[in-house]
Order: sequence, then structure tokens, then C-alpha cells
Amino acid sequence: MTTETTAPADAAAPGHHHDYVHGYSETEAQRLGDQADTLAELLHAGTAYPAGSRVLEAGCGVGAQTVHLLAASPGVRLTAADLSAQSLAQARARVAAQAPTADVTWHHGDLHRLPFPDGSFDHVFLCFVLEHLPDPTAGLAALRRVLRPGGTITVIEGDHGSAFFHPESPAARRTIDHLVRLQARAGGDGLLGRRLHPLLTSAGFARVSVRPRTVFADDARPALVEGFTRRTFVAMVESVRAEALAAGLTTPEAFDRGIAELRRAAEPGGTFHYTFFKAVAVRP
Amino acid sequence: MTTETTAPADAAAPGHHHDYVHGYSETEAQRLGDQADTLAELLHAGTAYPAGSRVLEAGCGVGAQTVHLLAASPGVRLTAADLSAQSLAQARARVAAQAPTADVTWHHGDLHRLPFPDGSFDHVFLCFVLEHLPDPTAGLAALRRVLRPGGTITVIEGDHGSAFFHPESPAARRTIDHLVRLQARAGGDGLLGRRLHPLLTSAGFARVSVRPRTVFADDARPALVEGFTRRTFVAMVESVRAEALAAGLTTPEAFDRGIAELRRAAEPGGTFHYTFFKAVAVRP
Repeated sequence: MTTETTAPADAAAPGHHHDYVHGYSETEAQRLGDQADTLAELLHAGTAYPAGSRVLEAGCGVGAQTVHLLAASPGVRLTAADLSAQSLAQARARVAAQAPTADVTWHHGDLHRLPFPDGSFDHVFLCFVLEHLPDPTAGLAALRRVLRPGGTITVIEGDHGSAFFHPESPAARRTIDHLVRLQARAGGDGLLGRRLHPLLTSAGFARVSVRPRTVFADDARPALVEGFTRRTFVAMVESVRAEALAAGLTTPEAFDRGIAELRRAAEPGGTFHYTFFKAVAVRP
Repeated sequence: MTTETTAPADAAAPGHHHDYVHGYSETEAQRLGDQADTLAELLHAGTAYPAGSRVLEAGCGVGAQTVHLLAASPGVRLTAADLSAQSLAQARARVAAQAPTADVTWHHGDLHRLPFPDGSFDHVFLCFVLEHLPDPTAGLAALRRVLRPGGTITVIEGDHGSAFFHPESPAARRTIDHLVRLQARAGGDGLLGRRLHPLLTSAGFARVSVRPRTVFADDARPALVEGFTRRTFVAMVESVRAEALAAGLTTPEAFDRGIAELRRAAEPGGTFHYTFFKAVAVRP
């Protein structure tokens, strides 16, 4: 079952929409799907809501995490919200294909201005969303309002500053920095994962617990080298090429050299490390 | 019971001894002890050798890890080797105080030229040793020789490139880079952890498995903030101040500013992340 709530007129107003640094293409949706499948166990482990719980997924995007959330928590009453009608349509299609019996209400709107009464949800879940918000504390505070006292919020974020690899390469490192800089220019923060504890605390949450969830890929884990190092991380950095050139951050030669050297981390003898952070906190 | 084997005449020859970038002071021994106690569970979990096993700890230093190894593996027949007679004396005293009944043979000598027959040991353990060797593959190959076929080697190393923190600070980052650079000048590698898989493979070991062991300290873990962020990591970076100044890498003002900004990671609202790597491999 899927139903849809109505968006306020300004739901997809510019100012947030264009902030999404990773783009909205078909390729990007595929990349996000690959990433979610490779990382699902790592990121979703420990998150299982009781059947009947009212759960809000804020910023569900193309539904890459939604299907894993539903698989881990059968019987929840999920509301999945996103600012992009196009992403939401893809999320609906994905859920219809992978979890056709799930109870999902789709909401097209801005997580800062959700039209739900205070305390509407038992749990809030968001993954790779805060990194795109100009004011993540304000976003978290808006989500706190719709969470009931005693309800939990679960937040998963990456941190591009956690990436390191063998062979070490200053050129590759600079190329990753371009991604971080572009995201900052768009009002986001690619280094957000490390500051989940202070963010949740300042947004008024209690019992904040943050744990790193580390991906480490070497020759002993070829599927992770392919699924994460190459098809997730290198692909993400590579996807900002045109934008980095347009912004005058680099030259085609320098960018391509950085990508080529980063790819060596996915070749025999290479290693790649990345840390996601998963936080759980309670509305007092 | 403790016994001692004789060192070959050239055991403490220069060329390795002066490579030890962290120094040999009393304060340093205290720091290493604090570090080992804070991290013991994280680093030693999963390492327990059967009673009666012949175990070699290569580069036991002041015995900071030795006591934890003995606690996790009661009844082993341990040989603890180190290049520094002074460190070895401290290790003996530490073990005498904390594990007086342990069966330990102390060996003063170079791990590259151990006077033991091929295949003398069932297991080899080394922690924070490879990072100091000019040629870690040669060191590992020398240890492979004294390991019996089917025996395991366990290697634990840090990686200073894994350090990241909130608030982000370029000055703090540069100060950490000085430590890495000094260690490289001394023939070591402060970024070694990430390349344990290729190193063990090239040294002829099989079934190489490397896992990250991550320390993440925020306001929810005050003991770790104090024991690791402040007293282990910041103290280690701070300990190279005189050396960094003597090498002309920085000015007193710039170094002190870097340390001051790094310390903010240990203040309320700050966070600190560091990854150790633990590898286990088998002699074919």
C-alpha cells in the first residue's frame, strides 16, 4: 500500500533543491542503488523498528535506503519524504518492486516544514541527508518537533575526510578535496559525519550515541573493492568533474590524474578506507 | 619465570636504534603504558594463543603490549625481543609486576637477525614495530623464517593519516604531518597501517586478513577523550616539537597553534577519529 500526502506550494522551492551536489541523472540513481546494496548490512545493522511503529524517513531520495529500512523492519507504518518529486517517483517504483506490501505514505515536501503535528512519529531515520543542508541543526530541530518524546532519531552520514588509501597520492587527495569544496559551495558539508554528536546535542536531542561504521577494502575483499572503492567512491568523485572544471578548481589533466591515482587503490595491492557514522539519539 | 638469551654483538648497532622517533624517556614509557591500557581491549580482542604455544613478541619495547598479550593467553611460552636493552629492562620490570608467573624469555637483539632456528615459533606477534623499520617487508620475511609452517603472525599498526577530528583545522593537520615527515626521515612510515595487506603478501605470508580497529572519541566517551585523544594522540604529536623545530619544519608559533587547535578535538563538542589496523596471516 502506498498513499501520498500533498506538498505545500513551496515544497520544492529553490535554495535546497539545487544544493544536491551529486546530481539527479539515471546513472546517479543507479550509483546510489549500488552503493546502498553494498553498504546495506554495514549501515542498517542495528536498526529494526517494531511492527506498527510510525516511522519517518526524511529525505528518502530515490529510495535506495528505504527498501533496506523496510526489509529490516517489516510491519512499520513508514512516511517517506523528499524535496524532489522526481526522486520520490523513483523511490515509489523501487519500493513497489522490492517491497510491494509495505505500508508507505509518500510525502513531497521540505523536511524543515513538514505538515505533521508535533510528536507524529515514533522514530525518524535519515541517511546522507544532513550533508546537503545549509543548516543541519535547524533541520534536526524540525525533525525533533515531529518525533514523540522518547522517540528515537537515527542519522547516517559519510565523511569524505575519512578517506585514505594505498598507494598514497597527493593528486588523488586534491581531487577528493574538490568534491568537498563543491559541496561546501552548494551549502553542504562533505565532512559532516565527524560532527554528528555536537549537531544532535545542539538540536536538543538526548542520549546521543555515535559509532563509526568503517569500510575497508583490500585484495581480500574483491566485491567491496568493486562495489565500494570503484563503483561508489571513485564514481562519486569522478561525477563532479564537469562541475569542478566549470568552477575553475582544477584542470582536466590534474583532475584526471587524481582519478587515475585514486583508482590504483582499487587495483591489486591497493587498499581503501572510508568511515560512515551512525548516530542514535532520543527526543527528551 | 624469566630467562634471558644473549644478544649478538651487533644487536644494538646504530641504524635501527636511532630510528625510534618517539624517544626513550620516562615520560614516553608512561605514555606508551597509558596508551596500551586504554587500547588493550580494542587491539588485543581476538588474539588468544593456546597454553603451551611458543610465541614470539618481536619489538616488545617497554612491555606495554606484552602484559596484555600474557593476560589474554595464559600459559604461553613467550619470547620477547627488543633492540633496546633499556626498553627490555622496563619490559621485564613491568611483566614482573603484572604477570610474575608468566613464562618469558627475554631476548636482546634485532628482529632481522634472530638467532633462533627456522620454525621455532607457533605464533609471532608485533605491535607498533613495522612503522619504525626502513624495510618492513624484510623485517616480516625475517620473522616468517622463525615461524613454523601453518603458524600465524599478528601485526598491529596505526596510521596517522587516519586521524580526523572536529573542529577541522588545517594548522592541526599540518602539525600531524610534521610527525609523519619526521618518522619518514628516520626511515619509518607513520602511514603504514593501510598497507599491511600488500606488505604481508609481499613478505610471503598467506591468508592475509586485515581489519581496521577504530577509536572514535566524543562527549559520550570522556575516558577515551582523556586516555586516547589527549594523553595518547595529542601527547604523541606534541612530543616531536623540539625535533620538528630542529629540522626546520615549522616555527614555535605555528607548531603550538596546531597543537592548540588539535586539543579542541578533546574539548566539549569536539570529536576525534583514529584507525588502527590488525592483520593476521599464515606462514604457508
